[in-house]
Formats: sequence, C-alpha cells, structure tokens
Amino acid sequence: MRSANKTGDEVRVSVVEAAELAAQALQGAGFPEGQARTLALHFAAVEADGCSSHGLKRILRCIETARTHPETLEASPVASYPSPAVVMVDAHSGFSPCALAVGLPLLLEVASTLGIAALAVRNCFHVSALWPDVEWLADRTLVALSMTTSHPWVRPFGASRRLFGTNPIAFGWPRDNRKPFVFDFATSAISRGGLEALIATGSQLPADVAVDTQGRATVDPKRAAEGDLLTFGGHKGAALATMIELLAGPLVGDYLSQESGAVARAGGAAPQHGQFLIAIGAERFGTTYKDRAETLFGWLEDEDLRLPSHQRYARRAESDRNGFSIPATLYGELKKLGGTFER
Amino acid sequence: MRSANKTGDEVRVSVVEAAELAAQALQGAGFPEGQARTLALHFAAVEADGCSSHGLKRILRCIETARTHPETLEASPVASYPSPAVVMVDAHSGFSPCALAVGLPLLLEVASTLGIAALAVRNCFHVSALWPDVEWLADRTLVALSMTTSHPWVRPFGASRRLFGTNPIAFGWPRDNRKPFVFDFATSAISRGGLEALIATGSQLPADVAVDTQGRATVDPKRAAEGDLLTFGGHKGAALATMIELLAGPLVGDYLSQESGAVARAGGAAPQHGQFLIAIGAERFGTTYKDRAETLFGWLEDEDLRLPSHQRYARRAESDRNGFSIPATLYGELKKLGGTFER
Repeated sequence: MRSANKTGDEVRVSVVEAAELAAQALQGAGFPEGQARTLALHFAAVEADGCSSHGLKRILRCIETARTHPETLEASPVASYPSPAVVMVDAHSGFSPCALAVGLPLLLEVASTLGIAALAVRNCFHVSALWPDVEWLADRTLVALSMTTSHPWVRPFGASRRLFGTNPIAFGWPRDNRKPFVFDFATSAISRGGLEALIATGSQLPADVAVDTQGRATVDPKRAAEGDLLTFGGHKGAALATMIELLAGPLVGDYLSQESGAVARAGGAAPQHGQFLIAIGAERFGTTYKDRAETLFGWLEDEDLRLPSHQRYARRAESDRNGFSIPATLYGELKKLGGTFER
Repeated sequence: MRSANKTGDEVRVSVVEAAELAAQALQGAGFPEGQARTLALHFAAVEADGCSSHGLKRILRCIETARTHPETLEASPVASYPSPAVVMVDAHSGFSPCALAVGLPLLLEVASTLGIAALAVRNCFHVSALWPDVEWLADRTLVALSMTTSHPWVRPFGASRRLFGTNPIAFGWPRDNRKPFVFDFATSAISRGGLEALIATGSQLPADVAVDTQGRATVDPKRAAEGDLLTFGGHKGAALATMIELLAGPLVGDYLSQESGAVARAGGAAPQHGQFLIAIGAERFGTTYKDRAETLFGWLEDEDLRLPSHQRYARRAESDRNGFSIPATLYGELKKLGGTFER
C-alpha cells in the first residue's frame, strides 16, 4: 500500500487505498480473501460517496460480528429460483454485500429477459446502504426498488412500544449519459446515523421525529436515542414501514425487525434479516421511457431542485479526483488489523 | 329497480340498487351495457366502502368525459404481453375500471405462475381509487402494489410551480380468513377530496400541506385549492411522488401528471394517463409468509392501532347489512339519466 497523506487527526486516502486497507484488515481478522475484497470495495465506495455512517467503520462492525458469529467467515451465499421470475439468495449468515454480489447479476438477467423479477435475500447480516444496489441495476438500464427491515427502533404513532425498523427504501431509474436517478431513505423520521450526528454536534431534533423512554415527544437527540424514533409522514410513513416489514421480512421468509432485534440482543452483532428487491426491465415496456423521464428531470433541474442522488455523485467525483479523509483512529485500527495478515 | 328509501335530502340504497341505478344512468347516456355494468358495480362498491369522493358521483364525471371525448364510448381495452412477465393493457381512451377488469385476471395468472409480474395500463381515463384492485389481488393470495399519476396539483417544496400529481400508491397483503391488509394514500400532504371536505365544513388545513397562488404557506383550504398542494413527509414524500411519476408515466409509455393536465385543459374531462401495478405470487417465495405477517398484525392490533383498511371494511359490512345513503340530488340526476334508457 502506498503511504497515505496524514493531516492532523484525519488521513486522506484514495478509493483504491481505502479498499486495500479494508481488505487487509478483514483478511487479518480471518475473512477469506474473496469475501474481504467484496466487503472492502463496497465500504470504500460508500465512504467515497460521502456516507461515513455506512462506510469504512462498518468494517469493524463486520469483524465484531464475525467474532460472535464465526459462521459468517465460512458463509457462502447460495442462489436458487423458487419461481421463474424470482431469484432467492440464502446468505447462510454471510454479509449483505456478498449475497448481493451473487444475486444482482442473476436478478439483472431474469428481469431483462422477463420484464420484471424479484430478488429475495435471506439469512443475511445486513451491514450496508441500499443505494449501491439500485444504482448498479439502473446503470444497466433497469428500474430498481430495494427494501430492508432493521432493528426495532421505531414506535408507530399511538403505540406503547417499538415495532418497526428504520426500514429504508431505495429506488433507481436509468438515464442516458448521466448517472441514474436514485433515492434511498429511512421510513423513520430520522435515521440512526442522523441521530448520532445531532448528538455529536449538540443539536436539537426537529419536532415529531422521536419520543423518550416514556413515549413523550422529545427534541433531545440523546433522549431520543434511549427512546424510540417515529415514522416520517405520520400514518403514511407508518403504512410504508409496514409494507417494508412485510416484503423484506415474511415474504422472503425472514425476521420482522422486532424479531431480528431479539436475536441480536442474544448475540450482539449486525442486524440479521432479509432484503427484498424488484428489478424492472424497462426496455421491455417500450422505447420512450428514458426520453419521457428526462422531461420531468428537466423541470426539476430548471427549478434548481437537486435530485436526491446529486450530492452523492458530487462527492464521488471529488473523491475520485482528490481522495477522501477518514479519521486517523479508524485508519490506525484498520492498519493494525491488517498488520496481523501476512500475504 | 325496487323503490329506494328516501329520507330528507338523502336516499338510502343497497349496493345492488346503487349499481343498477348507475348502470341505467350510464346506458341512458350512451354507454354500451358491458362498460356501464363494470363502471356501475365498481363505483357502487367504492361508495359502499364509505368513499363518496371516489364513488357514485364519478358516474357523472364519466358521462361528462364521454360527452367531450365520445371515443370513450367505443373504447375496448386490448391486452398484450410485451415481455413474459409484463401485461400491457391499452385502454384506447376507455375508463380505468374497464381496463383493469381486463388486466387484473391476466396479471393474477402471470404473477401466480412466474412469481412476480407487472401490469402497465396506458391511454386510460383514470376515474377510480386504487384499493379495489390491490384488494382483489390480495383476496387471491397475491401481494400487490399499484400507482398512478394524476393532474398537476402538487408543488415540490422549493419549486415555483406545480409539477407532480397527487400520485397515490396502494398496497395489498393477503391474510387467511380475514380481509387483506390494504393501504391507499396520496403522496400529496392532503388529497383533493380531503381539501374539498375541509372547504365544505369551513375547517382549516394543518400547517405545511399547501401553498397559495403566490407560493406562500396557507392553512385556508380555499386558498390552497387555488394554489398548490405539497407532498407529504417533505423530501421523502417528494421522492416517492417522483418514483410514481416515473413508473406510472414514462415506464408505461404515458403522460407525466403535468402533461396529462395540459391535455385535460384542452378538453375538460377526467385525467387521461397511465397506471402501473406489480403483483407478487407470494406463495412462490415460501410457505411461511402469512403466518409471519400475522405476528406483526397481532402486535399492531394489541396496541389498538387500527390497520389502514379497518374503517373501509367496517363501512362495507354496515353497507351490506343496511345499505348506504347518497345525496337525493345525485340519486335524482342518475335516475333522470337512466330514464332516457329503454330496455
């Protein structure tokens, strides 16, 4: 590895350097090389997109999970076709990026051929953001939708306890000569990462996003972290959260967020549960979809409304040119883990 | 038809009486019998579910549309399979319930066989709610999702003009020995029907749901009706509205809400545009989905949280027992239209 550019308490690295650092750390901690490279590339790319909450620090989370669940190190995802338009990937307790690396090309193939297909991922330690997968499909002309459950951090309005996960949903739409239109958001009113960021900066929460342990509204992010989040958009957000619980849980034959949380409390690891994706071979529907969609994107851009993926792509371009910074402590920890690995 | 029970300015009818009244009115206005019966049954059922904004008064809207667009009377929806898992129904300027009557059984068949399938409806005068279709599929063990664009009544936050429709989304999930879990909501912060109801009762709007013609926040529903609605849930609702524009518009080869509005202003009729449905043959994914889902529904019911379809089913049961009331003026108008029809 080339020497990284260290400034104060941050270290500047390129995406390639970051991926190498992460892969060495994972191999040092006992991960087989293939799995280590898949995870390392994934998290380095997410970090380069400016999302540190889902970036390289999750390497440490994977290693922690592998310590309490050594079966993850042996895990090899197995794909099957329970139905012609359905790809099922049993992660066998492996990590989500490894299961997706197997499932996405199969989903792409089936959806392109049949016009629409689903990918059900089971028995997965979910450790990642959803946008890289829908973006990967949309880069290949497919329209894509992805959902996953999580741990039960969300209390439906009017309930006495937490029942939903933060249950993100992501969508990708292909564009000619441009990066896809992609969104990826939690159906909780604020994400866990957002909450942590507010605690770190000593800021207050907006109203109506969280309750304390007694179920009383709070704008204090620390109280919210001990208490429960609410869904975004009131009963409509709650309806979407329910839909995501059903599709990424019972439909794929995996846990509800509440159940996943109970399993995790027994072990202390990354959330273990399912994921559900739909891919649409848009070209099978007709030839006008891209042009018609550009009309809408044009209006939004004329209004100076940034598309939800705008900031991520800008950060990525910047990272590609000049690398990106990670905390020196994280750099040091990864480096140290990698030091135990001999090629 | 049996004589209806008239009280004051309301008339109480059974679902069968209402459907007969509506069918006679449509035939009196020149609709062919098959089309008249499909529309009449549909709107009578929606009225019986307690949703008068999408109920029998829309019969008058259909007749008005047929007057300015006489091609609707000749319309016969034609189904095709552009791809093995995709059913396309060209409504040929007919009304949405007639196109769905052709498309839903085909969607059911393909999704049950392949595991997932899509239905794209094009060139449709959209006049209906979305829940009857997802409920129909869920009643047959399919998980269903439906979306449609509408007219451009919604201004994205930060924009200077209206760009989205109220763009509803509906979802259905099958349950054993119970009516399905169904939701159907507008991605606008308030529906057009909700706005009209507040105007009628002289009530104020909640904050952050609409702006006046100058783009200033307003809680006056009359000013909101002249101005624009906002999306629910801020940027997340706007992202969903964009997804629905893309799927129910460009993907199916039909108008964006803005374009549909421009076409309508030239003619003055029901919104003409597309609709997009996904059906999932859940049984193809495994056998545990219904039981696992009941765990979630059980928790929600233990918390006394009403499922979104609860009220509709209660009203339907009441209507089945005792009929339902419609305004005497609407009853009179339909009766008069039917009077011009000779069997």
